Amino acid sequence: MSLAQWDQLVLDGTEKTPLYKQISERIEQWVQEGRLKPGTRLPSERRLAEILKVSRMTITLANEDMKAKGIVRSQQGSGTYIMRSARSERVEGSTVWQHHFTYQLGSMSDEMEEIMRYGLDPHLIHLAGVGTAPEVHPGIELSQCFSEHLRKNPILLQLPAPTQGYEPLIMDVRKWLYDREIEANPREIMIVSGAMQGLDLISRLFLGPGDYVIMEDPGFLAASDAFTATGAKILRITLDQEGIRIDSLENLLMQFPVKFIYLNPTFHNPTGITMSLKRRKRLLELAKKYKVLIVEDDPSSLLYYGKKPVPSLKSLDEDNNVIYLQSFSKYLFPSLRVAVLVAPEGIVSHLVKIKQRIDLHSHNLTQIAVHAYLSEGRLEDHIEKLRQAYRGRLDLVHDVISRNANLRCHIPEGGVFLWCKLPCSLSAERLLDLAIQKGVSFVPGNWLSGVGLYENRMRLAFTHPSVDLLKRGLEVMNEIIAEHHAGQSC
Amino acid sequence: MSLAQWDQLVLDGTEKTPLYKQISERIEQWVQEGRLKPGTRLPSERRLAEILKVSRMTITLANEDMKAKGIVRSQQGSGTYIMRSARSERVEGSTVWQHHFTYQLGSMSDEMEEIMRYGLDPHLIHLAGVGTAPEVHPGIELSQCFSEHLRKNPILLQLPAPTQGYEPLIMDVRKWLYDREIEANPREIMIVSGAMQGLDLISRLFLGPGDYVIMEDPGFLAASDAFTATGAKILRITLDQEGIRIDSLENLLMQFPVKFIYLNPTFHNPTGITMSLKRRKRLLELAKKYKVLIVEDDPSSLLYYGKKPVPSLKSLDEDNNVIYLQSFSKYLFPSLRVAVLVAPEGIVSHLVKIKQRIDLHSHNLTQIAVHAYLSEGRLEDHIEKLRQAYRGRLDLVHDVISRNANLRCHIPEGGVFLWCKLPCSLSAERLLDLAIQKGVSFVPGNWLSGVGLYENRMRLAFTHPSVDLLKRGLEVMNEIIAEHHAGQSC
Repeated sequence: MSLAQWDQLVLDGTEKTPLYKQISERIEQWVQEGRLKPGTRLPSERRLAEILKVSRMTITLANEDMKAKGIVRSQQGSGTYIMRSARSERVEGSTVWQHHFTYQLGSMSDEMEEIMRYGLDPHLIHLAGVGTAPEVHPGIELSQCFSEHLRKNPILLQLPAPTQGYEPLIMDVRKWLYDREIEANPREIMIVSGAMQGLDLISRLFLGPGDYVIMEDPGFLAASDAFTATGAKILRITLDQEGIRIDSLENLLMQFPVKFIYLNPTFHNPTGITMSLKRRKRLLELAKKYKVLIVEDDPSSLLYYGKKPVPSLKSLDEDNNVIYLQSFSKYLFPSLRVAVLVAPEGIVSHLVKIKQRIDLHSHNLTQIAVHAYLSEGRLEDHIEKLRQAYRGRLDLVHDVISRNANLRCHIPEGGVFLWCKLPCSLSAERLLDLAIQKGVSFVPGNWLSGVGLYENRMRLAFTHPSVDLLKRGLEVMNEIIAEHHAGQSC
Repeated sequence: MSLAQWDQLVLDGTEKTPLYKQISERIEQWVQEGRLKPGTRLPSERRLAEILKVSRMTITLANEDMKAKGIVRSQQGSGTYIMRSARSERVEGSTVWQHHFTYQLGSMSDEMEEIMRYGLDPHLIHLAGVGTAPEVHPGIELSQCFSEHLRKNPILLQLPAPTQGYEPLIMDVRKWLYDREIEANPREIMIVSGAMQGLDLISRLFLGPGDYVIMEDPGFLAASDAFTATGAKILRITLDQEGIRIDSLENLLMQFPVKFIYLNPTFHNPTGITMSLKRRKRLLELAKKYKVLIVEDDPSSLLYYGKKPVPSLKSLDEDNNVIYLQSFSKYLFPSLRVAVLVAPEGIVSHLVKIKQRIDLHSHNLTQIAVHAYLSEGRLEDHIEKLRQAYRGRLDLVHDVISRNANLRCHIPEGGVFLWCKLPCSLSAERLLDLAIQKGVSFVPGNWLSGVGLYENRMRLAFTHPSVDLLKRGLEVMNEIIAEHHAGQSC
């Protein structure tokens, strides 16, 4: 609901019920009436206090009261939200079950859900999450070549599926990797249900309370969630123009028993930075020296808009210290959930053991579809189409952004994200509140930090909406920044 | 390799190397030459001692030596196997990574892998695991109606997919459940990648070290693996003709802080027993009294061959204490990996949070395919076809089995398993060794027990092979039992 509507939350000063209780009860009532939808973000305490003409403390108390009743939840740096199932939490006695829970729910950020919610909201121009540009979406082509493939081999769906993956797809992938200087034998490759499942499997195999992982700051939100869910601690390192700061890295490796270093070295999410060849080699030396694994997440290295990026860590690794994750989400589409994990045999064999107990194997139907598509060599052509489409989009972005002196975005050499600087006087979360009201979503920089940095940064994904909507979305940003802030970019 | 070949493992009594070392080294050599395939089961110590004409102790020492080198692994009640990746375990320095592992690999049985391996071996008549009978396999029909569906709605694959599941499929499922007296609102339903993922999610949300789960003995192997992987303990209860023994159940509920009771009350795997209505009601009373959840696994209640079974626990539950798992694997085919989880909203909302961090959501392609199939009402007709086909198969089973006085199988009123008694003088594992050599696989009863029962029982799945192969497989069993054993069934 828009800010304006909050002033309809009428309070009665003469009532015996304290004001904070009245607020809490009205909001609960609105939720039950469906007037406030689950997931709605409440205005900040400060602003709600202004709107309702009460003290900040009253709002704080009201929020505490609603939290206790399970009507809202709040999250550091993310705001306060109406709970997904406020009513049921109490009516259905699931409070009984709440204290049966052992999963470290506390360790989970709400930002991921928030970003997914934006993606599902048809009224929003979705610059928060990644999707395949409609003008080059391969869905129809893929499903057509899939059904042709099935007509030719009707027996396919009757074959059992190995946990490690559909064998013909593993063979496609092996060749695909070979063309990228990664030599893997079939027992070093497994198919996972998206890179996220790969990270979950790796986390389960290696991590537990008391373990440490190193990752970039800012970095991939879903990865840090997967790591912390095990009880492990994350050590964050910032980046310079050559990638993760190597001096700080060795420093930490000397101090902490680190299980692995998680990196996105090529067209890094969100900064777009690509690690230099020199630093890649140094990193591999350190991995060898300190006997620590590297988990290389490589979702978009083929989406380069200038020259090809430097070789992957996996292709440079001579000591088998790298676990390599290659998702097809950025090349095909995210909802497909097919990714590849490459690791030493002794690790893959154990990850397969775990996956077998998690979901037996990834869906056959999808694996056969991707195989049908890959085996006909269509993926290369498709990726070339993507590069062209995204180059065009980046030119558009450049045109629109350059009109705004208060918004400075790094136009990346590859990948799917823009990393932008806002005026010091404007926090990205404040801008998000305003943008959402005007129908545009993005990710505030501080959501991607484990140490509270990047309050004045934002991540814009430029691949999901249509070109027109992308243009409109960026213009909306310009308007908001122009209206509200004349300050210099921070 | 067949038993005969083991005598080619020649030992040299004059050599300085002790005999156990010689054995270990020869076997390692055979593995490296590819002469022994990963997953091969070694003969029992007793029998290998006979073949090689050495003492039992020599074999024990050889096995210990090979285990230490990572050449073989052995599992209580299952035997000793060549490791999946014996070579790599050492060559690729993954021994370094081994002691980085935190996942409780020790808690995982090898039986699941063994059963899957049988399913993937084209030379075996697979009576160990479940599949859809080729004569009624819906794969082709399903993929055709899927591609028609996509042609009509080409936009489908471009839609983002919610973690909770593809909404139209959730709506199909809601109606589907309603027809089975289960009333669920859409927020109480989620789509999971097979019932196994449902069990994994439930285990992660509720279980940790020090927790207790109650389940049937014998019971579903993958379920006990999912539970123990969290560090939780399983309390096992045997069944009588009305299902799980309710007296022992209350006894345990009084003594232990049980998180949930996991049950397969209709056409139980493996015994085929269906819990009586009286006991279902009593069970629900106990769940309420002791504030314990019930997890009802219901994979095959629509595969009844006589009268319809009694209503599900979920449909009888008035206090919202039941989490219901309905897999489509037995109705469509296992490799599809689509199942439904129904639970109180407050639980589903948390399971969705966890799933989001595990694989974001289940594959869109498959969910759309199942929706296309369900929405056209084809599933009902298909299940009727399955019933007819499986009735016919059970008549065949009856004919073949009844010729053998030493093999007594319970012909079930529904489901996909036969539970058979062998002569006391013949253990199911011994029979399995002999059957594998003759190209037939099944599951020994003790693999399904957590307390070492059912050594002379076996589970036969009658749905996977063609009718001819099923007949042949059963006849092979008859032959082996006739040749080797005249004893009474145990």
